[in-house]
Amino acid sequence: MKNMNKRSFAVIGAGALGGLYGGMLAKAGFDVHFLFRSDADHVRKHGLKVESKWGDFQLSPVNVYDRAEVMPACDVTILALKTTQNHLLPELLPGPTGTGGSVLVLQNGLNVETQVAAIVGPGRVFGGCCFLCCNKVGPGHVRHLDYGRIVFARYDSKHDSPAEVDPQARSIAADLQAAGIDAHAVADLWLTRWRKLMWNIPFNGLSVVLNATTQELIEDAATAELARAIMEEVATASAACGHLQPADAIDQTLQHTRQMVPYDSSMRLDYLAGRPMELEAILKNPLVAAANMGVAMPNVRMLYQQLLFLQNQASNTHRIAAQ
Amino acid sequence: MKNMNKRSFAVIGAGALGGLYGGMLAKAGFDVHFLFRSDADHVRKHGLKVESKWGDFQLSPVNVYDRAEVMPACDVTILALKTTQNHLLPELLPGPTGTGGSVLVLQNGLNVETQVAAIVGPGRVFGGCCFLCCNKVGPGHVRHLDYGRIVFARYDSKHDSPAEVDPQARSIAADLQAAGIDAHAVADLWLTRWRKLMWNIPFNGLSVVLNATTQELIEDAATAELARAIMEEVATASAACGHLQPADAIDQTLQHTRQMVPYDSSMRLDYLAGRPMELEAILKNPLVAAANMGVAMPNVRMLYQQLLFLQNQASNTHRIAAQ
Repeated sequence: MKNMNKRSFAVIGAGALGGLYGGMLAKAGFDVHFLFRSDADHVRKHGLKVESKWGDFQLSPVNVYDRAEVMPACDVTILALKTTQNHLLPELLPGPTGTGGSVLVLQNGLNVETQVAAIVGPGRVFGGCCFLCCNKVGPGHVRHLDYGRIVFARYDSKHDSPAEVDPQARSIAADLQAAGIDAHAVADLWLTRWRKLMWNIPFNGLSVVLNATTQELIEDAATAELARAIMEEVATASAACGHLQPADAIDQTLQHTRQMVPYDSSMRLDYLAGRPMELEAILKNPLVAAANMGVAMPNVRMLYQQLLFLQNQASNTHRIAAQ
Repeated sequence: MKNMNKRSFAVIGAGALGGLYGGMLAKAGFDVHFLFRSDADHVRKHGLKVESKWGDFQLSPVNVYDRAEVMPACDVTILALKTTQNHLLPELLPGPTGTGGSVLVLQNGLNVETQVAAIVGPGRVFGGCCFLCCNKVGPGHVRHLDYGRIVFARYDSKHDSPAEVDPQARSIAADLQAAGIDAHAVADLWLTRWRKLMWNIPFNGLSVVLNATTQELIEDAATAELARAIMEEVATASAACGHLQPADAIDQTLQHTRQMVPYDSSMRLDYLAGRPMELEAILKNPLVAAANMGVAMPNVRMLYQQLLFLQNQASNTHRIAAQ
């Protein structure tokens, strides 16, 4: 039954992340509408299964849609699609965002809000990073292994660092927290995005190039040193863009990675499954942003070139296989 | 029948390179003595089979030894062992070099002559690079696909750039040329070694990390650009060490690589066969030499770290498999 006093949510891209957070919100009584693609029929019949360190649960029935145009206008649209699918946004966003709804962009990478802002207007966009280990393990079946924090802020197209947390962001965070989600509204979106990139660039990238788990990478002296060098490049670029990371950010990130459960990065899972990797959002956009401030990131650039090669080889293979 | 007027040669490490050049010398009537390991019995029985773009031939009988101590003292010992085997040099060199013989170090990498000079004395050492595509395809069976040039010089422990070609180097080159080998004596060993590294570092290294042939690497825009960036680092390091490469060296090397027959780099063959890679000679020593001159090579360092990781993972796998 729809609760008219509570915020309504749409979830676009109901994979691991969208399934977990959308499921938590629905379980807590929020009105949640999910856009599914291949899993729509399965979830209509069997509901959504979430195994989580926050407690396992089964959600049924689920408000399932397989076309965004027919979704009701919601207060907040959680965008949890891969950035490699962002060419679909013009057809996906208008339905659930309606005339006044906001978008919370929970995608990896840098400048991923730009396309959303161009569609719904910059004043209706929030961006955030998720620090979680969560995989989709089957149709409508999500496994949340570790972490789970969402850190988000109002999107500011001028890339400023506001001093204050936006009140609407604070209010959305309160709803997410009420649903048991470890969500935090912060003032500076860009500081958060660059901080997440300090992990994503080395560990997503190297896990693909070296065909390794994050655990193997962090336990080897050579790649631990390389990951640190890459993080230093990213922290330098972040500072050059006006967002100075805390002095202990690198050590803390390495320490967290050491303690993480053995985990395949999302980029490696994409690569192994033959899906396109999020190279533009995670590597190219930061390289461009740094270059605009006169900062070179030689190791990040090399990693990007290596990943481009692997991506090209993979699509060649697929094209050949499809002939 | 031994020809007493001609130089005698020993070949240590009779793989692809030693088999080809030693075979050419023996075919031309030089007195050549080969140290074989696993192939000794096969070559004693069946001789040495060389398929070469310079003409196929079969050499039989062959002066085969399986222990260096019993080899006769020769005028020139061609050292064609992998550098990963250089810990064996103290037992391998004294026999064939005797009291006055010279050593021609035809190994990959930088500063590989240092260990040889420490054993036989610096005045008896020549170093050179081979630009050839040649593989060992079976016991006592060598296939020479492309190129074949040897460029060598007298070793100078002071890393100077002499103005003149050493007369003894010139005389050895004349013998090699008489045997049909494309050999050239030059003045500056270091210029030659750094020049070869301009190819070896990007194409050996990336072919392992990206599991690719040199052709795949050069035909992809991203890796062609990366190879160029790595070459620029190596050329800068070479210049900083006092050995300025010609302005067109990078373009020429890329052009040669584009025209090369499809070829697996020696490092990739080593890696795929589970053998140790020549990481110290080809990557670590140049990094150290550049760092001593205050030059950082961020892409080369990253490649070295990636290769170290893969080497470590491979030896872990072997250790586990051996348990």
